[in-house]
Amino acid sequence: MADKKMVEQITSMEEDFAQWYTDVVLKADLIGYTSVKGCMAIKPAGYAIWELIQKQLDERFKATGVQNVYMPVFIPESLLEKEKDHVEGFAPEVAWVTHGGLQPLQERLCVRPTSETLFCDFYKNDIQSYRDLPKVYNQWCNVVRWEKETRPFLRSREFLWQEGHTAHATAEEAEERTIQMLNVYADFAEQVLAIPVIKGRKTDKEKFAGAEATYTIEALMHDGKALQSGTSHNFGDGFAKAFGIQFTDRDNKLKYVHQTSWGVTTRLIGAIIMVHGDNSGLVMPPMVAPTQVVVIPIQQRKEGVLEKAYELKDRLSNFRVKVDDTDKSPGWKFAEAEMRGIPVRVEIGPKDLEAGKCVLARRDTGEKLECMLDELEEKVAELLETIQKDMLEKARRHRDAHTYVAKNMEELGNILNTTPGFVKAMWCGCQECEDRIKEQFAATSRCMPFEQEEISDVCVCCGQPAKKMVYWGKAY
Amino acid sequence: MADKKMVEQITSMEEDFAQWYTDVVLKADLIGYTSVKGCMAIKPAGYAIWELIQKQLDERFKATGVQNVYMPVFIPESLLEKEKDHVEGFAPEVAWVTHGGLQPLQERLCVRPTSETLFCDFYKNDIQSYRDLPKVYNQWCNVVRWEKETRPFLRSREFLWQEGHTAHATAEEAEERTIQMLNVYADFAEQVLAIPVIKGRKTDKEKFAGAEATYTIEALMHDGKALQSGTSHNFGDGFAKAFGIQFTDRDNKLKYVHQTSWGVTTRLIGAIIMVHGDNSGLVMPPMVAPTQVVVIPIQQRKEGVLEKAYELKDRLSNFRVKVDDTDKSPGWKFAEAEMRGIPVRVEIGPKDLEAGKCVLARRDTGEKLECMLDELEEKVAELLETIQKDMLEKARRHRDAHTYVAKNMEELGNILNTTPGFVKAMWCGCQECEDRIKEQFAATSRCMPFEQEEISDVCVCCGQPAKKMVYWGKAY
Repeated sequence: MADKKMVEQITSMEEDFAQWYTDVVLKADLIGYTSVKGCMAIKPAGYAIWELIQKQLDERFKATGVQNVYMPVFIPESLLEKEKDHVEGFAPEVAWVTHGGLQPLQERLCVRPTSETLFCDFYKNDIQSYRDLPKVYNQWCNVVRWEKETRPFLRSREFLWQEGHTAHATAEEAEERTIQMLNVYADFAEQVLAIPVIKGRKTDKEKFAGAEATYTIEALMHDGKALQSGTSHNFGDGFAKAFGIQFTDRDNKLKYVHQTSWGVTTRLIGAIIMVHGDNSGLVMPPMVAPTQVVVIPIQQRKEGVLEKAYELKDRLSNFRVKVDDTDKSPGWKFAEAEMRGIPVRVEIGPKDLEAGKCVLARRDTGEKLECMLDELEEKVAELLETIQKDMLEKARRHRDAHTYVAKNMEELGNILNTTPGFVKAMWCGCQECEDRIKEQFAATSRCMPFEQEEISDVCVCCGQPAKKMVYWGKAY
Repeated sequence: MADKKMVEQITSMEEDFAQWYTDVVLKADLIGYTSVKGCMAIKPAGYAIWELIQKQLDERFKATGVQNVYMPVFIPESLLEKEKDHVEGFAPEVAWVTHGGLQPLQERLCVRPTSETLFCDFYKNDIQSYRDLPKVYNQWCNVVRWEKETRPFLRSREFLWQEGHTAHATAEEAEERTIQMLNVYADFAEQVLAIPVIKGRKTDKEKFAGAEATYTIEALMHDGKALQSGTSHNFGDGFAKAFGIQFTDRDNKLKYVHQTSWGVTTRLIGAIIMVHGDNSGLVMPPMVAPTQVVVIPIQQRKEGVLEKAYELKDRLSNFRVKVDDTDKSPGWKFAEAEMRGIPVRVEIGPKDLEAGKCVLARRDTGEKLECMLDELEEKVAELLETIQKDMLEKARRHRDAHTYVAKNMEELGNILNTTPGFVKAMWCGCQECEDRIKEQFAATSRCMPFEQEEISDVCVCCGQPAKKMVYWGKAY
């Protein structure tokens, strides 16, 4: 019975999803609280997920020609103020450095909430001719936004992310790069994180401060709330004009560059938890699981059991594999491996040894399979692939089952208040209607999806002719 | 003649080493200046070096059981003040955040200059029992120190680094980890960066604020100045007592943990430049060269030349390889590849094509070798290995040729003022003598090397009985 203690301390997700989330984040040892309000410590089990995300995303970036750089963590106040919409969007939520050493600074510096202004200031000097274009730079770094309410991974005063910043000779090329990176994010979410996403464009109300267009990938969490999981912005030449980033083109004319930026954050770890997790804890997609396979010896004091467990571990060294040889009971070890979301558990005991077999248990379905020991490597490889695929399908089925259609405000309200999920509804395009929906139902427009449908001719709110189908939802 | 312009803009190192350094850093496109005083932008060519350092060092860390984590960028003032020596060492050079959003903060936060205090605060909660030990955590991050005079990579207000922070049950284990990590650094410097280092212990005057013992690796730059290239600190239980980090040991007694920390920074890029560079620019050790091989087509408009260049590039895809197919002249391309320090240049022209050959040029020696095309992969692999080895040997010869012995103050002063390098001299162990040497010759004790020699019986300064041989030098 004591074996279950670890699990019993988790609130069930049906009872209180928010508390379940916090319990998982802490019990799976992903983060620790710190004395710095609103900032978390990312522990080894959490940071290892981020490293796997970084590595695989960075490879995808580089395959499209992205180069990594590093810009300062500080932005002088005068630089932040150069683009009007941008400063209005960010100034209320930045941290200000006013003293360096024992001296007050002549000009305040903010800790970067995002680095458009620094990249613009840099590009202004670095770009002279069409030969210097395109610039396709990215940085992996920390950023700070002075949020009032914080939650681990989802919203914190400091978080880790990557921010890509590009400069192009033409508007077409900038738009192409914006969409290209959105597609990189969408593929990564689906293929690596096993999270299906809706690709679309943000309304003007929801777009990034200073952007001409913001594109987004939106995912649906297990509780029916949406999570904006990555964004890609086309700035046109707005920042270029504010910062004076010009180049001499082939035709010898001086022109402004066109810019983009795009980013994903440690928030993706929150998405993994809330899309795949269950009442036993985390469920990690194999491709980002810090441990993919755990070998658990049963009756490990019996002759040959521990040795066999180590042997199996060695044979599985192509995977991220561990043996749990601690002196805890098997039941405790099972519960712990489940809490951490390890995709495959290999059980090996004295009887298995005799029979030349072992048991493989899937974390995602709980299913147990017998496996002949001489087929182990092959079966584990197959199983990890199957789990990765099945997790995406399961998440897709959940998302689709929680995607609704509303034709009028009554339907929209009913759905949003009783069966949370995505709601597809038509929109006339005016911000008044968008504001009204937000006000009445505490829901926001998630995006105007690339895949448009004609649900009806008229706006769900005002009944005027509809221009776009929009995904609405309550969001993190 | 125009082909040489790029190179001619570099000051020669014999004329003005400091200016040569700045020229190389800028012309090799490693950094850009920014509007943030004392902070640099690390450009793709510079950041790619850091990525290679990170990757290879991180692998070595993990092989010793290190786990990566991430702590907040901010430290509350009260936390920084908990360890007396530590706050005295760092408070004068930190940046202070006083406002979050539009509100003044109740307590100032400093931007981390180093994270001992954050890790201690974290360990205080995370460590309860001997079962929780050891903790061997590391983070890769940015830190800020409000330096007055700055130089790219060597000293800047913000820099990138890794900081390891460990906690152990016993003093012995902490000391063992301190030395283990120093050895990791030393091996990495020699095997990967081709930089020979002296391993030793810092004097009390030069040790880290709050440490019981600081160990260092010291390298000699081409101009005869020393560069502290990595440090490893044993804190004993000083921080543990200041922060109350206790655990219940096997014997059921409450004990304080013993701690260490260790770090290397982007300064290592400065070391690579100043150890290996020459008057044509950077000379990169193959193991951290972002581009290891550049294929340069000669008379590239002649039939078959460009195609052959691409073919050779494909055949060399096991290496980090590029083709320079721009419309610049071969001479310009050579100079550019030299400036960037690319270890091997492959030249291929119409005559080579006919003869089934190409030319391989070494960046480190300038030597040119003919190579039969069908032996290309093999020869390039051999050559890169040879270059890596030869660069270490060359640096070692330079270091040894600039390491002197002094038996009295006159000798010490003569050497330090006329032939900069390391000077080995005996020391009585009292800070008065150390201070006097610093004052008279503007030189500091670099370390008390592990490999001690008996140069004389008496202190170079006061003539009292000597306790230790010390390396002295002028330093960056």
